[in-house]
Amino acid sequence: MTFNCEKSIVRVKKMTDCQGDGEGANSPMGLYEKLTAQGDKVRTLKTAKADKAEIDAAVQLLLKLKVDYKQMTGQDYKAGCPPSENSVVPDNGPAADGADDEDTVDPWNVSTTSAKGVDYDKLIVRFGSSKIEKELVDRIEKVSGQRAHRFLRRGIFFSHRDMHQVLDAYEKHKSFYLYTGRGPSSEAMHVGHLIPFIFTKWLQDVFDIPLVIQLTDDEKYLWKDLTLEECHRFAVENAKDIIACGFDVNKTFIFSDLDYMGASPEFYRNVVKVQKHVTFNQVKGIFGFTDSDCIGKISFPAIQAAPSFSNSFPQIFGGRKDIQCLIPCAIDQDPYFRMTRDVAPRIGYPKPALLHSTFFPALQGAQTKMSASDANSSIFLTDTPKQIKNKINKHAFSGEKTRWKSTGSTAETPTWTSPSCT
Amino acid sequence: MTFNCEKSIVRVKKMTDCQGDGEGANSPMGLYEKLTAQGDKVRTLKTAKADKAEIDAAVQLLLKLKVDYKQMTGQDYKAGCPPSENSVVPDNGPAADGADDEDTVDPWNVSTTSAKGVDYDKLIVRFGSSKIEKELVDRIEKVSGQRAHRFLRRGIFFSHRDMHQVLDAYEKHKSFYLYTGRGPSSEAMHVGHLIPFIFTKWLQDVFDIPLVIQLTDDEKYLWKDLTLEECHRFAVENAKDIIACGFDVNKTFIFSDLDYMGASPEFYRNVVKVQKHVTFNQVKGIFGFTDSDCIGKISFPAIQAAPSFSNSFPQIFGGRKDIQCLIPCAIDQDPYFRMTRDVAPRIGYPKPALLHSTFFPALQGAQTKMSASDANSSIFLTDTPKQIKNKINKHAFSGEKTRWKSTGSTAETPTWTSPSCT
Repeated sequence: MTFNCEKSIVRVKKMTDCQGDGEGANSPMGLYEKLTAQGDKVRTLKTAKADKAEIDAAVQLLLKLKVDYKQMTGQDYKAGCPPSENSVVPDNGPAADGADDEDTVDPWNVSTTSAKGVDYDKLIVRFGSSKIEKELVDRIEKVSGQRAHRFLRRGIFFSHRDMHQVLDAYEKHKSFYLYTGRGPSSEAMHVGHLIPFIFTKWLQDVFDIPLVIQLTDDEKYLWKDLTLEECHRFAVENAKDIIACGFDVNKTFIFSDLDYMGASPEFYRNVVKVQKHVTFNQVKGIFGFTDSDCIGKISFPAIQAAPSFSNSFPQIFGGRKDIQCLIPCAIDQDPYFRMTRDVAPRIGYPKPALLHSTFFPALQGAQTKMSASDANSSIFLTDTPKQIKNKINKHAFSGEKTRWKSTGSTAETPTWTSPSCT
Repeated sequence: MTFNCEKSIVRVKKMTDCQGDGEGANSPMGLYEKLTAQGDKVRTLKTAKADKAEIDAAVQLLLKLKVDYKQMTGQDYKAGCPPSENSVVPDNGPAADGADDEDTVDPWNVSTTSAKGVDYDKLIVRFGSSKIEKELVDRIEKVSGQRAHRFLRRGIFFSHRDMHQVLDAYEKHKSFYLYTGRGPSSEAMHVGHLIPFIFTKWLQDVFDIPLVIQLTDDEKYLWKDLTLEECHRFAVENAKDIIACGFDVNKTFIFSDLDYMGASPEFYRNVVKVQKHVTFNQVKGIFGFTDSDCIGKISFPAIQAAPSFSNSFPQIFGGRKDIQCLIPCAIDQDPYFRMTRDVAPRIGYPKPALLHSTFFPALQGAQTKMSASDANSSIFLTDTPKQIKNKINKHAFSGEKTRWKSTGSTAETPTWTSPSCT
């Protein structure tokens, strides 16, 4: 196969030579080839004055491939210029593509200037994930033999990575395990925090599989003005709320990082493996770290990555390293797992698959999510009915956002349709 | 007390206000005050045409204080400009002071262009440590009730930090513990590696105190092209050589990081504490890390720091966090402990004291140290008599360094007077 592009002819031989990493179309050169071909296709369609919907779909795919390419190589795609050898996983946030400068979505901040909330379709393109189409929901129903959970049917879980692959394997009797987590930054969890846990419980029930739940008390110590003891206590308190969701006691492992890191040499070994294969340049690009950040923050992403690999839990998987992991979480956690998926094949592990949820809006409106750090934005599981009533009256309906009062529009009222994982 | 300096009068009140960290003369402002006073003293001596030796000694102290100041604040001392609030521990290596560009001394490289080897007096000034004077050797003899070890009498251990403080406390029946280590980068240790262990055994014997020995197999995995399994195996092999030195089996704890990190939540807690209090800017300055370094290297210094704090070993010290640590090591390891000493008071722990040894020269000459990575530079504990003979004939006496042959000078022959810790 040869093809033309704007500036030069790139021959198949060269591309084949560069695909030595065993990733095929997922190598920088494989992706470059795909992109160039897609560019050609768009031009051909336009020249042929094809159907608008067809052109739009082709352009959409082209844009997505460009985002993937930048994510994989750290370089902007340029027709006729194959990727250089040193690929990095770069910032693909707002600053990188300039397209979504109204939405900030990362593990520590979620905000948008739009009263309608985050534009999730744009986020899918920016993060390079895939939309959960009706076809996938139907397939989950078929494979599990259960009606899809309401969070799937209602689009609360809206995006995924490799879910079809998980189902393909499951149909061939190759099982998988679930991994989700919580950053214990407060004594009480709020309603937004429950979304991933409620959905994860359903997944555990219908697929009958193990689940690990990471409580990142070390992360909260590193990021917040809290002591180690406080963070660990929050982890224990939060664990109680999580247990109350009703997970299978024989198939669920809930752990605090501060405890488990010091209790599992296998877990630490995986942390170090990830730490060896990620540079400061990469975490700078993915998480926006700066030279003034403490070295604990800089290396922490490896600790959130490690539970994606089954041999981090020899007590569950007996040392097997090939068991596929599926991570249900709010989409703000995706940067951790983009990084994890980049590292996984280089250290001999399968990439974790993901199911992403939307955010649970703050009481003040959909511009930001409920946050445990801002008590007035959230309804906590420990709030009394009276407290809940007061919060809603004061902050959601009669507070500074007067449009809630004047329009009374249900479309803008905070609902359960936008959960949050942190 | 007030004093004049070149540009302004700095009043005592201001300095006192800035000494809020409990470090007194060891705070940036305290050191600034000391420096300004010392500058005045030098000027006074010169004006008074004092004895040359006296002026030289005052200048030497002034230079040392300037190095300390830069190390503490990240700023060059400037008369009349008190330190700003944001102090960092910066690079105080060759590039920082420009004075020693012929000597490279850091945890991974030791080299000099001088055939006589590293200039250790300059290194003391550059690192801001103190020379082991005869007075200190005498005091160790007095306090321990034993004749000083030959490595002390012969100047192999030549530099220290806070050793007088350790002895003061010991005289008041406040004990301390020893901490040293080894980076297991090869199956066999070489003769240079033995120096700190031989000396540490003597310290343990005469003071009758606990000893912890860290084998940084995680570090070697991060820095070298080795697998985790190889590094761990080297740690086990090296432990056998270390055990053979004859430490007190009831008072010695030898551990691999890969094992102990996953076996002690208390150790991990101290690692995270250090990681929260050191920025990338600081490790960049101290160790020369760059944005292309992996995040494991960047956060590793916290792991070498943690054994300096007694509550990292609850099985030995029962959770006490106030037991003074003394670290005998080759001086190339000092950057780790400069960082540790900077962090210690901020997390509520005593600063570790240090005893520094010189390097053990390579067979090829004193420009570099014996290195396990270069088999021809070293005599390994596993080498046969025949191998040792061949190495010396080929690399030390009949190799490319023809001066060994022609001069036959014993002064330039590799001797035991320059050990190495790594």
